[in-house]
Amino acid sequence: MRADLDYARQLDAHDDLAAYRDAFAHADDELIYMDGNSLGRLPHATIERLRAAVEQEWGGDLIRGWNHGWYEAPRRIGAKIAGLLGAGAGQVLACDSTSVNLFKLILAALALRPERRAIVSDTLNFPSDLYVAQGCIELLGGRHELRLAPAADGTTVDPAALYEAIDQQTALVTLSHVAFKSGFLYDMAAVTARAHAAGALVLWDLSHSAGVVPIELDAWGVDFAVGCCYKYLNGGPGAPAYLYVRQELQKAVRSPIWGWFGQQAPFAFGLDYQPAAGIDRFLSGTPPMLSLLAIEPALDMLLEAGVERMRRKSVQLTDYAIELFDAVLAPAGYTLGTPRSADQRGSHVSVRHPEGYRINRALIEALNVLPDFREPDNIRLGLAPLTTSFADVWRAVERLRRAVAERHYERFPAERLAVT
Amino acid sequence: MRADLDYARQLDAHDDLAAYRDAFAHADDELIYMDGNSLGRLPHATIERLRAAVEQEWGGDLIRGWNHGWYEAPRRIGAKIAGLLGAGAGQVLACDSTSVNLFKLILAALALRPERRAIVSDTLNFPSDLYVAQGCIELLGGRHELRLAPAADGTTVDPAALYEAIDQQTALVTLSHVAFKSGFLYDMAAVTARAHAAGALVLWDLSHSAGVVPIELDAWGVDFAVGCCYKYLNGGPGAPAYLYVRQELQKAVRSPIWGWFGQQAPFAFGLDYQPAAGIDRFLSGTPPMLSLLAIEPALDMLLEAGVERMRRKSVQLTDYAIELFDAVLAPAGYTLGTPRSADQRGSHVSVRHPEGYRINRALIEALNVLPDFREPDNIRLGLAPLTTSFADVWRAVERLRRAVAERHYERFPAERLAVT
Repeated sequence: MRADLDYARQLDAHDDLAAYRDAFAHADDELIYMDGNSLGRLPHATIERLRAAVEQEWGGDLIRGWNHGWYEAPRRIGAKIAGLLGAGAGQVLACDSTSVNLFKLILAALALRPERRAIVSDTLNFPSDLYVAQGCIELLGGRHELRLAPAADGTTVDPAALYEAIDQQTALVTLSHVAFKSGFLYDMAAVTARAHAAGALVLWDLSHSAGVVPIELDAWGVDFAVGCCYKYLNGGPGAPAYLYVRQELQKAVRSPIWGWFGQQAPFAFGLDYQPAAGIDRFLSGTPPMLSLLAIEPALDMLLEAGVERMRRKSVQLTDYAIELFDAVLAPAGYTLGTPRSADQRGSHVSVRHPEGYRINRALIEALNVLPDFREPDNIRLGLAPLTTSFADVWRAVERLRRAVAERHYERFPAERLAVT
Repeated sequence: MRADLDYARQLDAHDDLAAYRDAFAHADDELIYMDGNSLGRLPHATIERLRAAVEQEWGGDLIRGWNHGWYEAPRRIGAKIAGLLGAGAGQVLACDSTSVNLFKLILAALALRPERRAIVSDTLNFPSDLYVAQGCIELLGGRHELRLAPAADGTTVDPAALYEAIDQQTALVTLSHVAFKSGFLYDMAAVTARAHAAGALVLWDLSHSAGVVPIELDAWGVDFAVGCCYKYLNGGPGAPAYLYVRQELQKAVRSPIWGWFGQQAPFAFGLDYQPAAGIDRFLSGTPPMLSLLAIEPALDMLLEAGVERMRRKSVQLTDYAIELFDAVLAPAGYTLGTPRSADQRGSHVSVRHPEGYRINRALIEALNVLPDFREPDNIRLGLAPLTTSFADVWRAVERLRRAVAERHYERFPAERLAVT
């Protein structure tokens, strides 16, 4: 029976990425961790890397650490991230947070299209990305408009609605490659081409796609991109983010934040800022080195596993989750909040239920499952190819069923906790 | 003899902060570490804190870490930093880098004085602070002027020259409390009062003073402040920085970077930004949690030791260094790059020599001393009250003497390495 745990175990037995699971910490073998898209698991190698960074490099080498691999870290780690993004050398930096990087790149993009006054996005975009855009507009005097294409069903955006919003006034189109709530996957090549045809630039947020969806920034002609490292990149809580600026644009753009790490000669300590050549000009202040170095071991593993293999397993995992959803969860009153076509889907599956918030609390506090909840009713299951097994998916679905069938959720109030 | 090592040992025997030295890692007992002002030593407690943060919280608690102390970390750690700055509750956050915080606060300040078009600083300020100000001016359309009061001798600034630059056109006066090169300590209360008398706001960079110089941000009426945590605060390489916004100003100001951590209700995921009440509005993206948590153990120690005691020892250390300078280094051709009056001095002493760059390399590579070099000829000795002994000062001076007397520096070229 395809709906049995035995079938899940067969899938695991044929999984050529299964061995990677042991490269990550599993403190509680009974815990079903479905939150890979909010915080990826800890690689064992990262424990060792951080121990060396703290005890040997900071503790022992002290200031000399900067000459022994720290100073180059934003570029070196950026180059590894680039390997997951289809980006050639000298275009990616690991630095700052996604919000700060977005801020830098939105302002850089708008400066390249001074005569145009619209930013196009949509209502599926991560709200923080919209906030940053709103802040840029305010900062520039309120002369720009933020146009949001509607998401009719809250799950996908009709490309026609998006394209309708892009016109000769559009300076920038900025979207999340995979929508944070529904997991909807955009056709980055097509949207980018459409934006370019209208003379607009594009800025993609790859936070929910990097590492699990094939991306070809160079081949697709993308102008700018950002993303975080703490989801499928397993970089640790609040890990520094990354940014991509297309090679041809680098001479023409500047970061608005003229920090010394983006200076041509930071240690000459001249009084006037001169931007560094190339991508380095998008660095700002001194990077948070421990958090930055913590990103690197997982990247080495992800590059070894390869995006194609991770995508193949990701599709198998989400296909399987949806198959079980139909068999087990739809009858229990859940609805699917994620596109059914793998071509339109990242690596997470959202299931919705009128009691979603309470069910999510029951999963965490009574049933030892960690998904995450996104208003108003989405329970988000992040399926990380290197750390999620098919048996995990089976068990998560079974516990979602029990949360309703055994009325576990009724023990929890619907009032929201401050942080979720 | 006061110039003997025995005398230094007597001073150490009477040092009531001497016991703190053992709370920090000392991998090489022969190394004389004089770079406390570029990267403070590693506290043993930080090793344990990071191990728990990585292995238990990230590895074991996973996403639940956010509910177990991570989410509050910028405020909680900010409140501890506030204890070193004379700042009451709700005015300090630990977040981003010093450059990014400066950027946010300069723009916030300029928005409060829209009719004024000058930013006043001086040529002793850390160049990156000037770069950030230059970037803000460019971003706002080039309508502001950055006025730099001159430092006649490269070591101090005559208050008269500074006050002359402050007028009715001045929106903001922004300075480093202790100058990075010479260690010159400004009279923060007096400069702040003078700026306020002209209707200008003030923004102080405390990077080289926090933890070693008494600061009373509230009592002195300071409007804004920023600083880094990796120098005398021992927060680790590139540790997240902090910012201070005076309570009365918080309602009237906004950060230009509208990230979700500065949103009123980040987890409601509304599409329109509403700034959080109070200081939280100056948060931007997700903070780099491992680097952020690494700051905390040292702060607990610094608060326990107390700013007054640290300042007292800091003055003793720098007085002693200057006494030895006069006895030993002046005859060897060095000149003093730091004010002789303790009232005008932070916690580092710069010694200058025409061959300073080569001497600095000889100290590091042949004589096991780690100072740092600042162009064109400054060898900077950072004396950290909790980790520097009087015997360290004696040994550093003796090796500086030998570097010249025994011509060690002649083995090293004068061409600058890329990073120092």
